[in-house]
Amino acid sequence: MAAVDELIERHQETLNRALSALTERDYWSPYPEIAKAYGESAPAEGKAAFEALLGTAFALPGHPQAGDLVGTEVSPYGIELDISYPRAEVDALLAAAKTAGTAWAAATPAARAAVCLEILARINARSHEMAQAVMHTTGQAYAMAFQAGGPHAQDRGLEAVAYAYAEQAKLPAEAGWTKPQGKRDPLVLRKEFVTVPRGTALVIGCNTFPTWNGYPGLFASLATGNPVVVKPHPRAVLPLALTVKIAREVLAEAGFDANLVTLAAERDREGIAKTLALHPEIRIIDYTGSTEFGDWLERNAEQALVYTEKAGVNTVVIDSTDNYKGMLGNLAFALSLYTGQMCTTPQNLLIPRGGIETDQGTKSYDEVVADLARSIEGLLGDDARAAAILGAVVNPAVLQRSAAAASGEYGDLALAPRVVESAEFPGATIRTPALIKVEAHKPDDRAVFLSECFGPVFFAVAVDSTADAVELLRQTVTEQGAMTATGYTTAPEVEQLLVRACLDTGVCLSLNLTGGVYPNQTAAFSDLHGTGANPAANAAYTDAAFVANRFRTVEIRRQA
Amino acid sequence: MAAVDELIERHQETLNRALSALTERDYWSPYPEIAKAYGESAPAEGKAAFEALLGTAFALPGHPQAGDLVGTEVSPYGIELDISYPRAEVDALLAAAKTAGTAWAAATPAARAAVCLEILARINARSHEMAQAVMHTTGQAYAMAFQAGGPHAQDRGLEAVAYAYAEQAKLPAEAGWTKPQGKRDPLVLRKEFVTVPRGTALVIGCNTFPTWNGYPGLFASLATGNPVVVKPHPRAVLPLALTVKIAREVLAEAGFDANLVTLAAERDREGIAKTLALHPEIRIIDYTGSTEFGDWLERNAEQALVYTEKAGVNTVVIDSTDNYKGMLGNLAFALSLYTGQMCTTPQNLLIPRGGIETDQGTKSYDEVVADLARSIEGLLGDDARAAAILGAVVNPAVLQRSAAAASGEYGDLALAPRVVESAEFPGATIRTPALIKVEAHKPDDRAVFLSECFGPVFFAVAVDSTADAVELLRQTVTEQGAMTATGYTTAPEVEQLLVRACLDTGVCLSLNLTGGVYPNQTAAFSDLHGTGANPAANAAYTDAAFVANRFRTVEIRRQA
Repeated sequence: MAAVDELIERHQETLNRALSALTERDYWSPYPEIAKAYGESAPAEGKAAFEALLGTAFALPGHPQAGDLVGTEVSPYGIELDISYPRAEVDALLAAAKTAGTAWAAATPAARAAVCLEILARINARSHEMAQAVMHTTGQAYAMAFQAGGPHAQDRGLEAVAYAYAEQAKLPAEAGWTKPQGKRDPLVLRKEFVTVPRGTALVIGCNTFPTWNGYPGLFASLATGNPVVVKPHPRAVLPLALTVKIAREVLAEAGFDANLVTLAAERDREGIAKTLALHPEIRIIDYTGSTEFGDWLERNAEQALVYTEKAGVNTVVIDSTDNYKGMLGNLAFALSLYTGQMCTTPQNLLIPRGGIETDQGTKSYDEVVADLARSIEGLLGDDARAAAILGAVVNPAVLQRSAAAASGEYGDLALAPRVVESAEFPGATIRTPALIKVEAHKPDDRAVFLSECFGPVFFAVAVDSTADAVELLRQTVTEQGAMTATGYTTAPEVEQLLVRACLDTGVCLSLNLTGGVYPNQTAAFSDLHGTGANPAANAAYTDAAFVANRFRTVEIRRQA
Repeated sequence: MAAVDELIERHQETLNRALSALTERDYWSPYPEIAKAYGESAPAEGKAAFEALLGTAFALPGHPQAGDLVGTEVSPYGIELDISYPRAEVDALLAAAKTAGTAWAAATPAARAAVCLEILARINARSHEMAQAVMHTTGQAYAMAFQAGGPHAQDRGLEAVAYAYAEQAKLPAEAGWTKPQGKRDPLVLRKEFVTVPRGTALVIGCNTFPTWNGYPGLFASLATGNPVVVKPHPRAVLPLALTVKIAREVLAEAGFDANLVTLAAERDREGIAKTLALHPEIRIIDYTGSTEFGDWLERNAEQALVYTEKAGVNTVVIDSTDNYKGMLGNLAFALSLYTGQMCTTPQNLLIPRGGIETDQGTKSYDEVVADLARSIEGLLGDDARAAAILGAVVNPAVLQRSAAAASGEYGDLALAPRVVESAEFPGATIRTPALIKVEAHKPDDRAVFLSECFGPVFFAVAVDSTADAVELLRQTVTEQGAMTATGYTTAPEVEQLLVRACLDTGVCLSLNLTGGVYPNQTAAFSDLHGTGANPAANAAYTDAAFVANRFRTVEIRRQA
C-alpha cells in the first residue's frame, strides 16, 4: 500500500523522537502550543470553520446511521450551537467496526503508527477550529481550549501511539531457534510472532476534556489494531466528532475502512454507554467520568479490559515555604484555572492551626487563608482577565455547587464566589472560586471536604500539625482517591514524610511549586497523569501497562 | 545492604543474558536440563533428601502458624508421603505479608531481581530433590519431573524476573525537565519516578505442574515488589513448600523478612483459595486450574488483577504430510507424554474422511487412525519404557475418564487403554491412551469431543474436508479455548488457512512437527505459553502485559 509507505516515511522521525522522549522524560512536543505558530490567519480561519458548523448536521460520510440526527450540546458561553450528529444503532456500529477491523489487524504496527501520526498531524493543523469546539462544549477559556484541547491532547495521543509501537515491536517478527542436542543434530524451529488486536474498543468521553482525556485510549487502542467506537459526553460531542471525522478521512485515504473509528452520538439520556459497555464484542473500554459509573464499568463489563479515570480529592499540605508570595500565586492560579474543573485541581488545603514558617515570618492559619483569598482576588480582579483564566462553568451541577458554597452551605466563607461578566459572551456563566474554612477534626466538616466537590469550591482545612496533615492526606488518597498531591515545605524531614505518604498511598506529588508550573498540569512524555494505584483511576497516561494488554501475540512455529 | 550488593554482582551477567534472550527468542537457558550436569551423586542425594521428608512435619521456621499441621498429598506412584505442613489463618498470613512488604517495596528493582535470581539458583541446585517432589505429587515420570519441574520451571521463573526488571527500569529514576519560554527563563523541574508494588499477591497452584505453572506468577509478583502467598493444590504441596522454604531462606539471608513468601497449606476441602481471593488485601492473583474456578475468580475477585490459565480443547488439523512416519511418531509421543495430562496436549485430531496425501501415498481416515494407534502401541509396548513416558495418572478424576473411554462411553475405540505395571512402583496407576473415532457432524459425538476431556483420551474426528477441519478448529478455540493448535500440511494454501484461523481466534500454532519438538512443549525465552486471547487463558507466560501492571509508578516532582 503505497499511501501507507509514504506515511511511514513521513512520520518516522517524529515517531523515533517520541520513542526516545519516552525514556528521557525531558520536555518535548512536536505540536507547538503557541497559537501564533499556526500562522496569523489561523485563529480566524478556525473560528470561521467552527461557525460554519453551527446549526448544521455534522457530516460523517459512510458512517452507520439509523435515520435520526441527535444534538444535545449547550455552550457554557451561551451561544446557540444547534449541531446535530448522525445516530446509529449499537449493532450497526459494532458490525461496521468488525468489518473494518480485518485489514487494520493485518497491517503492521509501523503502518498503524504512521496512520495514527497522520491523523494527529491533521488534527494539529486544525487546532484553532478544535479550540473553538472545546471552548464551546467544556467552557474552557480560548487559550486553554487551544492548548489543552489541541497540542497537549495531541501530545497525549502521540505518547500512546509511541508506547503502542514500542510494545508491539518488543518481540521480533521472526526468530530462529536452535537447541543443541549433544552429538545429535540440534533441534531447529523457525518462529513467527504476530501481534493481534483484542477487539473493538470503546472510548467514553468526558464533559471537561473530551480530547485530552479521550486521545490516550483512542490512540492506544487504534495503534494496537483495534477498531474504536467513540461515545462522546452528550454535552461535548463536537471535539470528538471532529476527531472522528479527521481519523476517518485519513484512514480512508490510506486505504483502510473509515469505520475503524465511529461516533456513538446518542439521544438525550439514551444511556448508550451501558449498552455498548456490556456488548460481548466490546473488548476494551477507556472511561473518564464519575466514580459511580466507572466502578459500574469495572464490575460489570467483564468481557472487556476497563481503564478508568474517576473522581478524587486532591490535597495540598502547607507546612512552610521560602517563597510565600510564589506559593500563594501558584495556588491562586491553580485553584482558578478553568474554575477548578480539572480532575487534577487541588480541593483541600491543609494548614496547621499554629501557622507556618515563611520567608515573611510566621503566618497563622487565618493569615494564610486570608492571603490566599487576596491572591485569588488579585488574580481575578479584572473581569476580562478573570474570564480568560476561569473560562465558564461547564454544567448546571457545578453551578449549583458554587451557589451552595456562596450560601454558606459548606462552611464559613473566607472568599465568596463572584459573578464575572464576559464582554465577548454575555451569556457565559462565570464564577470565581469559593474558599471555605473548615476544621480537620469536626465530623460535620469532614463529611463535606472528604468527598469530591467538583468545581470552584475549595477548603482551607485547619489541622493540628503537619504530621496531622500528612495523615489526613494518606486517609484522603486511600479512601477517596486522588489524581494529584501537593506539598510546600522547607524541612527535609517533612518532605520525607510527604514522599513516604505519597509512595505508600500511590499518588503523584508536586513539591514547592512557586513558578509557572502548577500542580494540576502534567506534560506528556514526562509526567504521568495519575498512578492507577489509588481509587481515582486504575491506569495512568501513558505507561506500558496502559497499552501492553490491548493486543496479544500469536506465535506460529514451523519445523525448519 | 552488603549481602544484596553481592547478589546483584553475582547475578548481573545472568540477568543481562536473560534480558537479551527475551528479545532474541533463540534457545537459551542458564539451568542445565541434563540430569548429569548436576553431578554424579546428585540424583541419589536428591532422592535421600526427599525421602528424609516423608512422614515428617515440614519445617518453615518463622512462618505464621495456627497450631495444627495439615497433610493432603497422595502419591500417584502409591508410596506413602505423610508429610504435614504448618497451617495458618488467612489474617495471620496477610498481616505477616504486609509487615514484610515495607522493606521489600523500598528495595530497588535491581536488588529484587538479584534476590529472585539467588532463589532460583538455590532451587536449581536442588533440582533432583524437586524432581522427586514433583514426581510424587503430579505423577510425572522422573525424567519429566526433573526437567519440567526443575530447570524448565526455573527458566519460566527467570523469564518473569527479567521481564519484571525490564519493565521497572523503563522510566529513568530521575529526570530533568526544562521547558523553553521564549525570551523568559525556562521552566525547570526535577522529577523522580518510583515504582511501587500493587500489594500482596496470591499464587494458586495446580496439581499437574505446581512449579512450572506457579513460578511465572510467583516471580513476576515478587520481583515487582509484592509479597506472595502461595496456595498450593492440596495434592501437590511439596514442590511449592520446598520453593517457599528456599525463597524464605534467601530472603532472610539478604536481610529481608522471610514472610514475603508464605505457604497457605489447607485442610482437606477447606477452600482457603476463595477466602484469600476475596480478601481486600490480595491485589494480584495467578491461577492455574479449572475453567469454573478461573471464571469465578475473574468475576468475583474485583479488588485484584487476576491472571488465569484454565481449561481448553487443543486441536490438530491433519491435511497432508511429506513425512508420514515422522508425523505419526511426533503425535504418538505428544499424546502419550505424561498421560495427556498437559494443558497443551492435543485432544482432537481432525482427519478428512476422504484421506490425506502423504509421502507414502494417500491414506484414508481409517488408515491414519489405525497407523496412529499402532505408533502409540509401538511407543508404549514395553512397560518400563511406557512408564517412563506416561508417568502415572495424577488423580481419580483422570482415571475415571480413562475407564469411561475403555468402556466405550465416549465412542468407538481405535485404541483401547492398557494397564501398565511399574516394577519400581507396584502401586502406581498407569494407563496408555485411548483413541476414539468420532464424526465431526454427529451431535452426540460433538457433545463429547467439543469439551475438555483432560487425560489420556483422544478423539480422531472424521471431517468432510480440510476446510471443514479449519472451521472446526476456529469454533473449538473460540468456544472452548485452547492452549495450542497443531497442523500438518504440505499445501501452502492450507497453511495460510490455518495461520489465518489461529490469528483470528488467538491460538499459537505448531506446523509440521515431525522431529524432537512436540506440540505440547514450549520453551521459555522463546515460546509464549498460550496467548491470553481465547477462553483458555487471559494471560501468557511471559510478556510485558503479564508483569507491567503488577507495579505502578509514583512521580515526585520538585521546582528546580
